[in-house]
Amino acid sequence: MPKRVDHRERREEIARALWRVVDQRGLARATLREVASEAGVSLGRLQHYFSNRTAMLTFAMDFAAERTAQRVAAGLAGLGQPAHPRDVLRVTLTEMLPLHPDARATSRMSTAYVLEALHDPALHDRARAGLRDGRAGVEGLIRQAIADGYLARDRDPAVETDLLLALTGFGTLLDLHVIEPHDALTAIDEHLDRLFSPR
Amino acid sequence: MPKRVDHRERREEIARALWRVVDQRGLARATLREVASEAGVSLGRLQHYFSNRTAMLTFAMDFAAERTAQRVAAGLAGLGQPAHPRDVLRVTLTEMLPLHPDARATSRMSTAYVLEALHDPALHDRARAGLRDGRAGVEGLIRQAIADGYLARDRDPAVETDLLLALTGFGTLLDLHVIEPHDALTAIDEHLDRLFSPR
Repeated sequence: MPKRVDHRERREEIARALWRVVDQRGLARATLREVASEAGVSLGRLQHYFSNRTAMLTFAMDFAAERTAQRVAAGLAGLGQPAHPRDVLRVTLTEMLPLHPDARATSRMSTAYVLEALHDPALHDRARAGLRDGRAGVEGLIRQAIADGYLARDRDPAVETDLLLALTGFGTLLDLHVIEPHDALTAIDEHLDRLFSPR
Repeated sequence: MPKRVDHRERREEIARALWRVVDQRGLARATLREVASEAGVSLGRLQHYFSNRTAMLTFAMDFAAERTAQRVAAGLAGLGQPAHPRDVLRVTLTEMLPLHPDARATSRMSTAYVLEALHDPALHDRARAGLRDGRAGVEGLIRQAIADGYLARDRDPAVETDLLLALTGFGTLLDLHVIEPHDALTAIDEHLDRLFSPR
Protein backbone atom coordinates (compact mmCIF):
# COMPACT_ATOMS: atom_id res chain seq x y z
CA MET A 1 0.00 0.00 0.00
CA PRO A 2 2.44 2.70 -1.13
CA LYS A 3 -0.17 5.48 -0.93
CA ARG A 4 -0.89 4.76 2.75
CA VAL A 5 2.81 4.64 3.63
CA ASP A 6 3.31 7.97 1.88
CA HIS A 7 0.38 9.46 3.83
CA ARG A 8 1.92 8.29 7.11
CA GLU A 9 5.35 9.65 6.14
CA ARG A 10 3.92 13.08 5.28
CA ARG A 11 2.12 13.17 8.62
CA GLU A 12 5.36 12.29 10.46
CA GLU A 13 7.22 15.05 8.61
CA ILE A 14 4.57 17.54 9.67
CA ALA A 15 4.72 16.24 13.26
CA ARG A 16 8.50 16.81 13.28
CA ALA A 17 7.94 20.36 12.00
CA LEU A 18 5.51 20.86 14.91
CA TRP A 19 8.12 19.54 17.38
CA ARG A 20 10.58 22.13 16.03
CA VAL A 21 8.07 24.96 16.44
CA VAL A 22 7.32 23.79 20.02
CA ASP A 23 11.03 23.51 20.80
CA GLN A 24 11.94 26.93 19.42
CA ARG A 25 8.83 29.03 20.02
CA GLY A 26 6.45 27.10 22.31
CA LEU A 27 3.14 25.33 21.76
CA ALA A 28 1.13 28.58 21.84
CA ARG A 29 2.78 29.52 18.52
CA ALA A 30 2.06 26.15 16.92
CA THR A 31 -0.89 27.14 14.72
CA LEU A 32 -1.66 25.21 11.52
CA ARG A 33 -0.24 28.18 9.57
CA GLU A 34 3.09 28.29 11.52
CA VAL A 35 3.57 24.52 11.25
CA ALA A 36 2.79 24.54 7.49
CA SER A 37 5.44 27.24 7.07
CA GLU A 38 8.00 25.29 9.14
CA ALA A 39 7.24 22.10 7.18
CA GLY A 40 7.53 23.96 3.86
CA VAL A 41 4.01 23.05 2.69
CA SER A 42 0.94 25.17 1.96
CA LEU A 43 -1.77 25.55 4.59
CA GLY A 44 -4.17 23.74 2.24
CA ARG A 45 -1.74 20.82 1.91
CA LEU A 46 -1.34 20.60 5.69
CA GLN A 47 -5.12 20.59 6.12
CA HIS A 48 -5.24 17.61 3.75
CA TYR A 49 -3.33 15.68 6.44
CA PHE A 50 -4.83 17.30 9.56
CA SER A 51 -8.27 18.87 9.50
CA ASN A 52 -7.65 20.93 12.65
CA ARG A 53 -5.03 21.88 15.26
CA THR A 54 -6.24 19.29 17.82
CA ALA A 55 -5.85 16.45 15.28
CA MET A 56 -2.33 17.69 14.47
CA LEU A 57 -1.31 18.03 18.15
CA THR A 58 -2.70 14.63 19.03
CA PHE A 59 -0.87 12.90 16.18
CA ALA A 60 2.38 14.75 17.02
CA MET A 61 2.04 13.74 20.69
CA ASP A 62 1.31 10.08 19.83
CA PHE A 63 4.26 10.08 17.44
CA ALA A 64 6.51 11.54 20.18
CA ALA A 65 5.38 8.82 22.61
CA GLU A 66 6.02 6.18 19.93
CA ARG A 67 9.53 7.55 19.22
CA THR A 68 10.30 7.56 22.96
CA ALA A 69 9.09 3.95 23.24
CA GLN A 70 11.34 3.00 20.29
CA ARG A 71 14.37 4.64 21.95
CA VAL A 72 13.58 2.81 25.22
CA ALA A 73 13.25 -0.50 23.29
CA ALA A 74 16.60 0.14 21.55
CA GLY A 75 18.23 0.88 24.94
CA LEU A 76 16.75 -2.28 26.46
CA ALA A 77 17.96 -4.40 23.52
CA GLY A 78 21.49 -3.28 24.42
CA LEU A 79 21.24 -4.71 27.95
CA GLY A 80 22.36 -8.25 28.87
CA GLN A 81 19.56 -10.84 29.08
CA PRO A 82 17.81 -11.22 31.40
CA ALA A 83 18.10 -7.47 32.08
CA HIS A 84 18.31 -6.29 35.68
CA PRO A 85 15.21 -4.20 36.54
CA ARG A 86 17.51 -1.42 37.78
CA ASP A 87 18.91 -1.07 34.25
CA VAL A 88 15.44 -1.28 32.69
CA LEU A 89 14.20 1.57 34.91
CA ARG A 90 17.34 3.62 34.22
CA VAL A 91 16.93 3.34 30.43
CA THR A 92 13.21 4.15 30.68
CA LEU A 93 13.74 7.24 32.86
CA THR A 94 16.71 8.67 30.99
CA GLU A 95 14.99 8.40 27.58
CA MET A 96 12.15 10.55 28.97
CA LEU A 97 14.57 13.38 29.83
CA PRO A 98 16.02 15.94 27.39
CA LEU A 99 19.54 14.46 27.47
CA HIS A 100 20.08 14.30 23.68
CA PRO A 101 18.43 16.08 20.71
CA ASP A 102 15.75 13.48 19.81
CA ALA A 103 14.76 13.03 23.46
CA ARG A 104 14.71 16.80 23.89
CA ALA A 105 12.22 17.24 21.04
CA THR A 106 9.87 14.53 22.32
CA SER A 107 10.14 15.63 25.96
CA ARG A 108 9.35 19.29 25.10
CA MET A 109 6.39 18.17 22.98
CA SER A 110 5.16 16.03 25.83
CA THR A 111 5.52 18.74 28.51
CA ALA A 112 3.81 21.36 26.34
CA TYR A 113 0.96 18.97 25.48
CA VAL A 114 0.30 18.13 29.11
CA LEU A 115 0.26 21.85 30.05
CA GLU A 116 -2.15 22.66 27.21
CA ALA A 117 -4.33 19.70 28.23
CA LEU A 118 -5.01 21.40 31.57
CA HIS A 119 -7.08 24.01 29.71
CA ASP A 120 -8.26 22.10 26.63
CA PRO A 121 -11.04 19.55 27.21
CA ALA A 122 -10.28 17.97 23.79
CA LEU A 123 -6.77 17.02 25.00
CA HIS A 124 -7.43 16.52 28.73
CA ASP A 125 -8.66 12.92 28.87
CA ARG A 126 -6.08 11.75 26.34
CA ALA A 127 -3.17 13.37 28.20
CA ARG A 128 -4.40 11.94 31.48
CA ALA A 129 -4.83 8.45 29.95
CA GLY A 130 -1.31 8.63 28.46
CA LEU A 131 0.25 9.56 31.81
CA ARG A 132 -1.79 6.88 33.63
CA ASP A 133 -0.69 4.22 31.12
CA GLY A 134 2.95 5.27 31.55
CA ARG A 135 2.54 5.17 35.33
CA ALA A 136 0.94 1.70 35.14
CA GLY A 137 3.85 0.47 33.01
CA VAL A 138 6.41 1.59 35.61
CA GLU A 139 4.32 0.11 38.44
CA GLY A 140 4.24 -3.20 36.53
CA LEU A 141 8.07 -3.20 36.39
CA ILE A 142 8.25 -2.52 40.15
CA ARG A 143 5.75 -5.29 41.01
CA GLN A 144 7.67 -7.75 38.82
CA ALA A 145 10.97 -6.73 40.46
CA ILE A 146 9.43 -7.45 43.88
CA ALA A 147 8.00 -10.80 42.67
CA ASP A 148 11.43 -11.75 41.25
CA GLY A 149 13.21 -10.90 44.50
CA TYR A 150 15.15 -7.88 43.15
CA LEU A 151 13.29 -5.54 45.49
CA ALA A 152 12.44 -5.97 49.17
CA ARG A 153 8.90 -7.34 49.67
CA ASP A 154 7.99 -4.48 52.00
CA ARG A 155 8.43 -1.84 49.27
CA ASP A 156 5.11 -0.21 48.38
CA PRO A 157 4.86 -0.47 44.56
CA ALA A 158 2.59 2.59 44.21
CA VAL A 159 4.87 4.82 46.31
CA GLU A 160 8.03 3.63 44.53
CA THR A 161 6.36 4.26 41.16
CA ASP A 162 5.42 7.84 42.12
CA LEU A 163 8.96 8.55 43.39
CA LEU A 164 10.41 7.29 40.08
CA LEU A 165 7.96 9.36 38.01
CA ALA A 166 8.90 12.47 40.01
CA LEU A 167 12.41 12.17 38.51
CA THR A 168 10.99 13.16 35.11
CA GLY A 169 10.61 16.58 36.79
CA PHE A 170 14.31 17.09 35.94
CA GLY A 171 13.20 17.93 32.38
CA THR A 172 12.54 21.62 32.97
CA LEU A 173 15.57 22.00 35.26
CA LEU A 174 17.71 20.58 32.43
CA ASP A 175 16.06 22.75 29.77
CA LEU A 176 16.82 25.91 31.79
CA HIS A 177 20.34 24.71 32.76
CA VAL A 178 19.53 24.84 36.47
CA ILE A 179 21.08 21.37 36.55
CA GLU A 180 23.26 19.69 33.90
CA PRO A 181 22.84 16.18 32.40
CA HIS A 182 25.55 14.78 34.68
CA ASP A 183 23.63 16.01 37.77
CA ALA A 184 20.39 14.38 36.60
CA LEU A 185 22.11 11.05 35.89
CA THR A 186 23.92 11.08 39.24
CA ALA A 187 20.67 11.77 41.10
CA ILE A 188 18.82 9.02 39.18
CA ASP A 189 21.61 6.53 39.96
CA GLU A 190 21.57 7.47 43.64
CA HIS A 191 17.78 7.02 43.77
CA LEU A 192 18.00 3.62 42.03
CA ASP A 193 20.86 2.51 44.32
CA ARG A 194 18.73 3.39 47.32
CA LEU A 195 15.67 1.64 45.86
CA PHE A 196 17.54 -1.61 45.14
CA SER A 197 19.60 -1.65 48.34
CA PRO A 198 18.45 -4.16 50.99
CA ARG A 199 16.77 -2.44 53.96
CA MET B 1 2.16 56.91 51.68
CA PRO B 2 -1.42 55.92 50.88
CA LYS B 3 -0.98 56.51 47.12
CA ARG B 4 1.93 54.05 46.92
CA VAL B 5 0.11 51.40 48.93
CA ASP B 6 -2.88 51.80 46.64
CA HIS B 7 -0.63 51.38 43.57
CA ARG B 8 0.81 48.14 44.99
CA GLU B 9 -2.66 46.85 45.88
CA ARG B 10 -3.99 47.50 42.37
CA ARG B 11 -0.99 45.67 40.90
CA GLU B 12 -1.62 42.69 43.20
CA GLU B 13 -5.30 42.59 42.19
CA ILE B 14 -4.25 42.53 38.54
CA ALA B 15 -1.69 39.80 39.28
CA ARG B 16 -4.44 37.69 40.89
CA ALA B 17 -6.61 38.21 37.82
CA LEU B 18 -3.68 36.97 35.71
CA TRP B 19 -3.32 33.89 37.96
CA ARG B 20 -7.02 33.11 37.36
CA VAL B 21 -6.62 33.43 33.58
CA VAL B 22 -3.54 31.15 33.70
CA ASP B 23 -5.37 28.64 35.90
CA GLN B 24 -8.50 28.52 33.76
CA ARG B 25 -7.24 29.15 30.23
CA GLY B 26 -3.42 28.95 30.22
CA LEU B 27 -0.66 31.54 29.91
CA ALA B 28 -0.98 31.76 26.11
CA ARG B 29 -4.40 33.40 26.65
CA ALA B 30 -3.08 35.89 29.22
CA THR B 31 -2.89 38.98 27.03
CA LEU B 32 -3.17 42.46 28.57
CA ARG B 33 -6.71 42.64 27.14
CA GLU B 34 -7.85 39.29 28.66
CA VAL B 35 -6.36 40.14 32.05
CA ALA B 36 -7.94 43.63 32.05
CA SER B 37 -11.31 41.99 31.35
CA GLU B 38 -10.79 39.39 34.13
CA ALA B 39 -9.73 42.15 36.57
CA GLY B 40 -12.74 44.28 35.59
CA VAL B 41 -10.65 47.30 34.52
CA SER B 42 -10.15 48.98 31.17
CA LEU B 43 -7.13 48.16 29.04
CA GLY B 44 -5.93 51.75 29.48
CA ARG B 45 -6.20 51.44 33.28
CA LEU B 46 -4.23 48.16 33.22
CA GLN B 47 -1.52 49.80 31.10
CA HIS B 48 -1.22 52.50 33.76
CA TYR B 49 0.04 49.72 36.08
CA PHE B 50 1.92 47.55 33.55
CA SER B 51 3.30 49.03 30.36
CA ASN B 52 3.57 45.63 28.63
CA ARG B 53 2.84 41.90 28.98
CA THR B 54 6.39 41.03 30.15
CA ALA B 55 6.20 43.55 33.00
CA MET B 56 2.81 42.12 34.03
CA LEU B 57 4.02 38.48 33.89
CA THR B 58 7.18 39.26 35.82
CA PHE B 59 5.30 41.06 38.59
CA ALA B 60 2.69 38.26 38.76
CA MET B 61 5.48 35.65 38.98
CA ASP B 62 7.37 37.57 41.69
CA PHE B 63 4.12 38.01 43.61
CA ALA B 64 3.42 34.24 43.31
CA ALA B 65 6.92 33.46 44.65
CA GLU B 66 6.38 35.94 47.50
CA ARG B 67 2.99 34.40 48.42
CA THR B 68 4.57 30.92 48.37
CA ALA B 69 7.38 32.14 50.65
CA GLN B 70 4.76 33.62 53.02
CA ARG B 71 2.88 30.30 53.15
CA VAL B 72 6.13 28.44 53.84
CA ALA B 73 6.99 30.96 56.60
CA ALA B 74 3.52 30.50 58.15
CA GLY B 75 3.97 26.71 58.02
CA LEU B 76 7.41 26.95 59.64
CA ALA B 77 6.07 29.22 62.39
CA GLY B 78 3.70 26.37 63.33
CA LEU B 79 6.58 23.94 63.97
CA GLY B 80 8.19 23.41 67.40
CA GLN B 81 11.47 25.29 67.95
CA PRO B 82 14.10 24.37 67.02
CA ALA B 83 12.35 22.81 64.00
CA HIS B 84 13.61 19.46 62.72
CA PRO B 85 15.01 19.89 59.17
CA ARG B 86 12.77 17.03 57.99
CA ASP B 87 9.72 19.14 58.92
CA VAL B 88 11.22 22.27 57.36
CA LEU B 89 11.78 20.43 54.05
CA ARG B 90 8.28 18.90 54.19
CA VAL B 91 6.60 22.30 54.65
CA THR B 92 8.74 23.83 51.88
CA LEU B 93 8.00 21.06 49.38
CA THR B 94 4.30 20.72 50.07
CA GLU B 95 3.65 24.48 49.73
CA MET B 96 5.16 24.32 46.23
CA LEU B 97 2.61 21.70 45.15
CA PRO B 98 -1.02 22.37 44.14
CA LEU B 99 -2.51 20.82 47.29
CA HIS B 100 -4.88 23.70 48.17
CA PRO B 101 -6.38 26.59 46.15
CA ASP B 102 -3.79 29.31 46.90
CA ALA B 103 -0.88 26.93 46.28
CA ARG B 104 -2.56 25.73 43.09
CA ALA B 105 -2.77 29.27 41.71
CA THR B 106 0.88 30.06 42.48
CA SER B 107 2.16 26.67 41.28
CA ARG B 108 0.30 26.94 37.95
CA MET B 109 1.62 30.48 37.47
CA SER B 110 5.12 29.27 38.20
CA THR B 111 4.97 26.25 35.85
CA ALA B 112 3.51 28.32 33.00
CA TYR B 113 6.13 31.08 33.50
CA VAL B 114 9.02 28.61 33.38
CA LEU B 115 7.63 27.00 30.20
CA GLU B 116 7.20 30.40 28.54
CA ALA B 117 10.72 31.37 29.64
CA LEU B 118 12.14 28.57 27.46
CA HIS B 119 11.11 30.58 24.39
CA ASP B 120 11.13 34.15 25.67
CA PRO B 121 14.57 35.73 26.16
CA ALA B 122 12.99 38.50 28.28
CA LEU B 123 11.90 35.91 30.87
CA HIS B 124 14.64 33.29 30.47
CA ASP B 125 17.40 34.64 32.75
CA ARG B 126 14.93 35.65 35.42
CA ALA B 127 13.22 32.24 35.49
CA ARG B 128 16.59 30.50 35.61
CA ALA B 129 17.83 32.79 38.42
CA GLY B 130 14.62 32.16 40.39
CA LEU B 131 14.98 28.38 40.11
CA ARG B 132 18.69 28.56 40.95
CA ASP B 133 17.97 30.65 44.05
CA GLY B 134 15.30 28.17 45.15
CA ARG B 135 17.72 25.30 44.56
CA ALA B 136 20.46 27.08 46.55
CA GLY B 137 18.01 27.62 49.45
CA VAL B 138 17.21 23.89 49.62
CA GLU B 139 20.92 22.97 49.35
CA GLY B 140 21.61 25.36 52.26
CA LEU B 141 19.05 23.49 54.40
CA ILE B 142 20.65 20.14 53.50
CA ARG B 143 24.20 21.37 54.29
CA GLN B 144 23.01 22.74 57.64
CA ALA B 145 21.24 19.44 58.43
CA ILE B 146 24.52 17.59 57.76
CA ALA B 147 26.52 20.08 59.87
CA ASP B 148 23.99 19.71 62.72
CA GLY B 149 24.19 15.91 62.61
CA TYR B 150 20.62 15.31 61.37
CA LEU B 151 21.91 13.80 58.13
CA ALA B 152 24.73 11.31 57.57
CA ARG B 153 28.03 13.06 56.68
CA ASP B 154 28.42 10.97 53.52
CA ARG B 155 25.25 12.36 51.94
CA ASP B 156 26.09 14.46 48.87
CA PRO B 157 24.26 17.80 49.40
CA ALA B 158 23.94 18.56 45.66
CA VAL B 159 22.48 15.13 44.83
CA GLU B 160 20.05 15.24 47.79
CA THR B 161 18.94 18.73 46.73
CA ASP B 162 18.23 17.60 43.17
CA LEU B 163 16.27 14.56 44.40
CA LEU B 164 14.14 16.81 46.62
CA LEU B 165 13.52 19.32 43.81
CA ALA B 166 12.40 16.48 41.53
CA LEU B 167 9.46 15.96 43.91
CA THR B 168 7.95 19.27 42.72
CA GLY B 169 7.36 17.29 39.49
CA PHE B 170 4.23 15.94 41.23
CA GLY B 171 2.55 19.27 40.33
CA THR B 172 1.38 18.27 36.86
CA LEU B 173 0.49 14.73 37.96
CA LEU B 174 -1.74 16.26 40.66
CA ASP B 175 -3.26 18.81 38.27
CA LEU B 176 -4.27 16.04 35.85
CA HIS B 177 -5.39 13.69 38.69
CA VAL B 178 -2.89 11.02 37.67
CA ILE B 179 -2.05 10.95 41.39
CA GLU B 180 -4.05 12.38 44.29
CA PRO B 181 -2.81 14.65 47.13
CA HIS B 182 -2.59 11.69 49.52
CA ASP B 183 -0.26 9.85 47.08
CA ALA B 184 2.05 12.87 46.75
CA LEU B 185 2.26 13.35 50.54
CA THR B 186 2.92 9.62 51.12
CA ALA B 187 5.72 9.62 48.52
CA ILE B 188 7.27 12.80 49.98
CA ASP B 189 7.19 11.29 53.48
CA GLU B 190 8.77 8.05 52.24
CA HIS B 191 11.54 10.02 50.50
CA LEU B 192 12.19 12.13 53.62
CA ASP B 193 12.18 9.01 55.87
CA ARG B 194 14.79 7.42 53.58
CA LEU B 195 16.86 10.63 53.51
CA PHE B 196 16.93 11.01 57.31
CA SER B 197 17.38 7.31 58.11
CA PRO B 198 20.89 6.27 59.22
CA ARG B 199 22.67 4.31 56.51
